[in-house]
Amino acid sequence: MLQELGKKAKLASYELATLTTAQKNYALECIACELENSQVEILVANAKDIAAGKANGLTDALLDRLLLTEVRLTAIIADVRGVIALPDPVGAESEGKVLENGLRLSKRRIPLGVIGVIYEARPNVTIDIAALSLKTGNAAILRGGKETVHSNLALVSVIQAALAKAQLPTDSIQVIADPNRELVTALLKMDKYVDMIIPRGGPGLHRLCQEQSTIPVITGGMGICHAFVDASAKVEDALAIIENAKVQRPSACNALDTVLVHKDIAESFLPLLAERLAANAVELRAEPKAHIILSNVNAKNLHVATADCFDQEWLALVLGVKVVADVEEAIIHIREHSTEHSDAILTDNLTNATRFLNAVNSAAVYVNASTRFTDGSQFGLGAEVAVSTQKLHARGPMGLEELTTYKWIAIGDGLIRP
Amino acid sequence: MLQELGKKAKLASYELATLTTAQKNYALECIACELENSQVEILVANAKDIAAGKANGLTDALLDRLLLTEVRLTAIIADVRGVIALPDPVGAESEGKVLENGLRLSKRRIPLGVIGVIYEARPNVTIDIAALSLKTGNAAILRGGKETVHSNLALVSVIQAALAKAQLPTDSIQVIADPNRELVTALLKMDKYVDMIIPRGGPGLHRLCQEQSTIPVITGGMGICHAFVDASAKVEDALAIIENAKVQRPSACNALDTVLVHKDIAESFLPLLAERLAANAVELRAEPKAHIILSNVNAKNLHVATADCFDQEWLALVLGVKVVADVEEAIIHIREHSTEHSDAILTDNLTNATRFLNAVNSAAVYVNASTRFTDGSQFGLGAEVAVSTQKLHARGPMGLEELTTYKWIAIGDGLIRP
Repeated sequence: MLQELGKKAKLASYELATLTTAQKNYALECIACELENSQVEILVANAKDIAAGKANGLTDALLDRLLLTEVRLTAIIADVRGVIALPDPVGAESEGKVLENGLRLSKRRIPLGVIGVIYEARPNVTIDIAALSLKTGNAAILRGGKETVHSNLALVSVIQAALAKAQLPTDSIQVIADPNRELVTALLKMDKYVDMIIPRGGPGLHRLCQEQSTIPVITGGMGICHAFVDASAKVEDALAIIENAKVQRPSACNALDTVLVHKDIAESFLPLLAERLAANAVELRAEPKAHIILSNVNAKNLHVATADCFDQEWLALVLGVKVVADVEEAIIHIREHSTEHSDAILTDNLTNATRFLNAVNSAAVYVNASTRFTDGSQFGLGAEVAVSTQKLHARGPMGLEELTTYKWIAIGDGLIRP
Repeated sequence: MLQELGKKAKLASYELATLTTAQKNYALECIACELENSQVEILVANAKDIAAGKANGLTDALLDRLLLTEVRLTAIIADVRGVIALPDPVGAESEGKVLENGLRLSKRRIPLGVIGVIYEARPNVTIDIAALSLKTGNAAILRGGKETVHSNLALVSVIQAALAKAQLPTDSIQVIADPNRELVTALLKMDKYVDMIIPRGGPGLHRLCQEQSTIPVITGGMGICHAFVDASAKVEDALAIIENAKVQRPSACNALDTVLVHKDIAESFLPLLAERLAANAVELRAEPKAHIILSNVNAKNLHVATADCFDQEWLALVLGVKVVADVEEAIIHIREHSTEHSDAILTDNLTNATRFLNAVNSAAVYVNASTRFTDGSQFGLGAEVAVSTQKLHARGPMGLEELTTYKWIAIGDGLIRP
């Protein structure tokens, strides 16, 4: 059955790949309209998921992620229209050249084909991925969490109605609704039909995909992010950046997890940092040197860092704190513990800034700015399908272009290779 | 032990990543000189492999791939100097922009880190991969075939001597000499240290890597390549292209495997094709319609196509032949049977050429040219590390740039996200 679904997606992808931008945008507008017309059905379906979630004892946080409201639906519909407004990367040709023998070569940007997305609670991801996939001429197979099955079925039925209206294949967007977990493993092996897997979830899901998938996987979304406060850092800027990176949205993958402080300023800087973060009740996990300094000033919410503290993505108001000898020790710590998502140096020293930029190879490397900027819309990509922390294909925020690949076009006039 | 090797490679990669182009070129020149000075040792080691190969009953073809001679070594050394002459992609910045808030963003090209290469007989691959890896600032772990173990150990010892001379970490290029096959599986799981796996071998090796690897794998090098001869094709050009694509080097992955002929010209074209290919003793495997036409003219080396004929990469003087109704049937056949390597249309009809270019999404799509051009040096990339037939990261011939990735560089002045 899953094979059949894959085959249909592949067939749909052939048709999507040759659509004009206008045709794709029309389909997206149909989706937006259909969502507007189907608000009641969607909210009713969502209410079933919420009721089931309550019955199953889901946390308030999870229930909130699951919940759709009229306001949230309006935002989702606005996002679809936002995707319509984005430029379409498909079809663009680059690196055109004529070889000495006359062969005309260029790279043409094309859709990937079929994208498999495995995600957890949020039903808005369903619409989000559908819109980004369609805009780039890709078919998608969606596997949402079992908590959202009613919402997802309602949303996909709206999408398929809109696709039919736009005279596009309804198999362009399909959902795997059966909660059987073996279907996820089976999906990961369908390399005949699926071209890319995007997991959106925790480390367990990513590891499962890495280990089981025979399809290329976009690993990402997990950030153990660092800020190194150099001796020359401007104190007020450094405090503001760390506060922002830690506090503004601690549940985000680009939120700060560890602060490394240069030994020469640790005595003066750490107490100021503790004071600043106390206002937000940030819990500090300090290694011995930092702990002594912070104890001396009776810092609030202070704990000793345990062995695994620096390998944790906190996703909460917790911050690892460590004193380092210099930028080199900071770099070594980051290489050992970073997930290569977003890491920052706060400094006024050009040599150290340059050294940090050269030596740290995370997806996004910052000088005197908050790691919270690692985000598709912040980076001006217009949308974001995932944040990649792997090194192949794409790094950091992935927008529309990262949902495409290229083919070489070669045009001759009876050309043979001598 | 393998973990230790991986760790050392990762540490070496940090140092390689920050070298200047001059430093890397100097190391490559040291390798070229050291190869010149060690010809005797290398040839002696190779003679051991050849003797063992003969004792183990290797075919003449395999022994020839294994063999190093003074002439071949000279060519290998020239190739290393060729890599010195290529531009270094590392460090280049692109897509620089300043966001409204003042954040200065750009993408900087960086090495991948550690590349694992698993390959078969040819010892020249050892030098080739080492040179391309070093030029791009990557460390490499090489796993050659057990038939070449003496040659590879000699070559890597020469490389490591040259690295020492150039004051670069000798762990930059390491070899797994132990023939135990479990080490390959273990290498494929070392995602902590290895950033990319390049298999260079047959379908079995590629499948093993796809199934076992937790590291991104470059799938490629296998080409079931098609030429569709449209009704409007210029007959003499079409014959010359098919002959070239099939005969010039049948063992190459970009050699032609299947010819699809438009029904309107099949009666006239197929006999001419059979005559042309008879001179090179090409065996024809024809589906029924084509077989009837070819039988009528007593075509030489004619066989009936069996069920799996169109899913074979021949790598030999064999050609599948099929009559199709039109460009659409050709496209459907190619989608079903192509490995998305190189496929061509031979036509004088603009609509059909355009349709074929749009609908066939192989790594290289040709109009009126031989598929044999899909090659790094032919495409002007200067060198080739593999030919990718997957869709992520790189497609078709992979040169130096495809051994790199990028990181986002973001520079602020105390910038926080509102």
